[in-house]
Amino acid sequence: MPAQTTKILHANNMNPQIRRAEYAVRGELALRAESLRDELAKGAQKPFSRVVNCNIGNPQALNQKPITFFRQVASLVEYPELLKEENAEVVSKLYAPDAVERAKLLLKHIGSVGAYSHSQGVGHIRENVAKFIEERDGYPADPSSIFLTQGASAGVQLSLQMIAENPNVGIMIPIPQYPLYTATLSVLHSKAVPYYLDESQAWGLTTAELQRSYDEAAKDGVDTRALVIINPGNPTGQCLEEANMREIIEFCHKNRVILLADEVYQTNIYHPKDRPFHSFKKVLKSMGPKYDGFELISFHSVSKGMVGECGQRGGYFELEGIDKEVVEQIYKISSISLCPNVLGQIMVDLMVNPPKKGDASFEKYNAEYNGIYESLNSRSRILEKTFNSLEGATCNPAEGALYLFPQIRLPKKAIEAAKAAGKEPDTFYCLALLEATGVCMVSGSGFGQVDGTAHFRSTFLPPPELFDEFCSNLKDFHAKFMDKYRD
Amino acid sequence: MPAQTTKILHANNMNPQIRRAEYAVRGELALRAESLRDELAKGAQKPFSRVVNCNIGNPQALNQKPITFFRQVASLVEYPELLKEENAEVVSKLYAPDAVERAKLLLKHIGSVGAYSHSQGVGHIRENVAKFIEERDGYPADPSSIFLTQGASAGVQLSLQMIAENPNVGIMIPIPQYPLYTATLSVLHSKAVPYYLDESQAWGLTTAELQRSYDEAAKDGVDTRALVIINPGNPTGQCLEEANMREIIEFCHKNRVILLADEVYQTNIYHPKDRPFHSFKKVLKSMGPKYDGFELISFHSVSKGMVGECGQRGGYFELEGIDKEVVEQIYKISSISLCPNVLGQIMVDLMVNPPKKGDASFEKYNAEYNGIYESLNSRSRILEKTFNSLEGATCNPAEGALYLFPQIRLPKKAIEAAKAAGKEPDTFYCLALLEATGVCMVSGSGFGQVDGTAHFRSTFLPPPELFDEFCSNLKDFHAKFMDKYRD
Repeated sequence: MPAQTTKILHANNMNPQIRRAEYAVRGELALRAESLRDELAKGAQKPFSRVVNCNIGNPQALNQKPITFFRQVASLVEYPELLKEENAEVVSKLYAPDAVERAKLLLKHIGSVGAYSHSQGVGHIRENVAKFIEERDGYPADPSSIFLTQGASAGVQLSLQMIAENPNVGIMIPIPQYPLYTATLSVLHSKAVPYYLDESQAWGLTTAELQRSYDEAAKDGVDTRALVIINPGNPTGQCLEEANMREIIEFCHKNRVILLADEVYQTNIYHPKDRPFHSFKKVLKSMGPKYDGFELISFHSVSKGMVGECGQRGGYFELEGIDKEVVEQIYKISSISLCPNVLGQIMVDLMVNPPKKGDASFEKYNAEYNGIYESLNSRSRILEKTFNSLEGATCNPAEGALYLFPQIRLPKKAIEAAKAAGKEPDTFYCLALLEATGVCMVSGSGFGQVDGTAHFRSTFLPPPELFDEFCSNLKDFHAKFMDKYRD
Repeated sequence: MPAQTTKILHANNMNPQIRRAEYAVRGELALRAESLRDELAKGAQKPFSRVVNCNIGNPQALNQKPITFFRQVASLVEYPELLKEENAEVVSKLYAPDAVERAKLLLKHIGSVGAYSHSQGVGHIRENVAKFIEERDGYPADPSSIFLTQGASAGVQLSLQMIAENPNVGIMIPIPQYPLYTATLSVLHSKAVPYYLDESQAWGLTTAELQRSYDEAAKDGVDTRALVIINPGNPTGQCLEEANMREIIEFCHKNRVILLADEVYQTNIYHPKDRPFHSFKKVLKSMGPKYDGFELISFHSVSKGMVGECGQRGGYFELEGIDKEVVEQIYKISSISLCPNVLGQIMVDLMVNPPKKGDASFEKYNAEYNGIYESLNSRSRILEKTFNSLEGATCNPAEGALYLFPQIRLPKKAIEAAKAAGKEPDTFYCLALLEATGVCMVSGSGFGQVDGTAHFRSTFLPPPELFDEFCSNLKDFHAKFMDKYRD
């Protein structure tokens, strides 16, 4: 417990749910990485020349270039003077004609990006999201069931908040999970009901395990209301097969739990033939009238995929089968925060409605998009190989997403040293890695893992030109670490 | 109660705090205004040709032009290609040189606006905020005590969330208030402790009334932890005198409550000689060592003032005297949402560090800024006169902010007609106004008012060229309404 204090507000009387919340992605390791960066900037001597943040999927912080068309449109809507006839000629030297047209169209619907929009998001953009979903899935989507949000996280938090009626309400979450879920449930004072992904089966998900998790929670009197699926997985990178997804929907239907589908990595798919992405919306609709009225909320974001516009904070969620009065309440709570930032909404518009064949920007867009995709794909395989080459480490491939989540079997001496330092063994390992190489990863304990195992999550986002150096630094560090602590 | 439902999630088992929350600014009247706008767009015949939203301070939705320098910088940071040497000549035809320099400087510190920033906000921008506060107040400010946020609302919600330990915690709020406060406290399941502003004293605030409010809550066993002051007032527009602010600080000190200072309208000051703006930070610091360690959180935003960039969602709060462990918890909870949108952060940078005398953009900036100010100032006086000319209406002047909050004394017949329609009398009046003129205001019951009185809030933001028509429509409607219901 913290020391006594004379402050009115202190750690002992603040909101206890916030105090209990944990969010490792920006926790101890990330904070240490920041101070190392400051030390380097101040000229401190370190065994490395730069800090590399692999703790978070933040592509543009690691030099991924934004998609030109997106940024041209954003640049134009921020300065509408450029769209005036008298500037057309000069502007045509800097911007593609279809970017100019898109900017004009968006401003026709929005007015100014400096004005609050509809609290649910600009209607025109929600219509484009609905069209995108219809083309993706082959089933109708309704703009009035779509809410634009500041990144997917805001939508997830809002959805969990709606469901969190009391401290006895449970939400099923995968282990390992993206810690947004446990952190948000802690703040909401509801229960996380863990189900385990099977590392030995490429982080597979079985309905038997879902049922075990649900039944155990029920035995403890937990009232489980929803199931979170992250597909493709974060931190685990697996991509669900359609048959498996049908079983999951049946499980939800049978046990009366709402399905929350976190599908922000839907375009980060690295084994498209044997592991393509299917949306839960599409699979649900393919299952026929028995599932009419099934309650599904799915989330998407402009932060991931090949877009990678994290800092612009854009996303959306689609409500399927949600009670009309609940939708009205979601609108009300959204309106208290007025509206999601309009540039983020525009990024959603660009993501769901990019240049098409024949548009002036199509070739460039296509080349940029595929270039990012191929590069992510190859880096994921190189890093996977690297991890599997490390003594005592095993790593499933990334079928999707932006991460690998290797398991490391640490020597007893390392585990004792960690205990002596008051750290989890995997955190101890990641801290040593950070101090030796400047590479910041997140230890598995931040995501949850089978007791007694040690993992860490790393993105494969370091820039291609530095990737070999990055991988060899990992190898060198790991070899030295194992030598130091080998039993 | 809503009808029975077979849904898993429905209005009877959702989060009850959300169901209870009310937010009138975007409530019944705003929703009706939206559907009227849709009807007009579909060619419906109405007694008016456009819907005018005076329910919310959203200047750019009513044609207020953004400040050119701000938008030039935003446009450049979104498309860094423009900053390359080879484009310098063409770009110089469209952008001011100091806008180019500012964009380069910001990107030097930020990298890409598409990358997540530090969860507390970009360090360089927080340093500029600290300098701005130091210049404004004449006392030091610390960048590590400043958090950038998506508009002020996000900062207010976060601060209240930190304090809301349990349902017995009370937060003092003014009546009338901006309903963000009651809505957020409802969601947080803590208590709003109302204190009343004195309409007969130009919405004055007395510490006697603060003490009455605090003591009554204490009698009811409420544990009051904080006091919210909105200065300049929303919806009431009053601006506090320095002596009054010192009394308020003494009240907080004596009763051990944290002061939450909502100062988003600090540049919307229309009687600068007799009612200048003083920040609570400055007044506190002027009161000497007795008040060292006093706990103050103050909020600012890019949405109001002469900036009016609501849709860009930028703001900040400054922590003064807040416990170090609590600050760490605020950082942690901020990190769960990753970061405020970077363009909004950049708008904060521009607001706190605008062009200076001698800069290429200064003259234009100054002209635009003063033009907006003078126009708001004159419109506030015209609308105040209009309201005071209405039968049975009285209206205090707007010393600050963007609103007037007149009281209307409605005939008994009108009150009966309202009751028959199941509406509050002031809501009944505002709905009639909306249907007759297309002007959307918010009834006083949405902000809170002395029982038995009727008020409404209107912005004075309708564009100057339409303002006379706007005012005469109000007069005509009011005269007809009074004739219809006169006793």
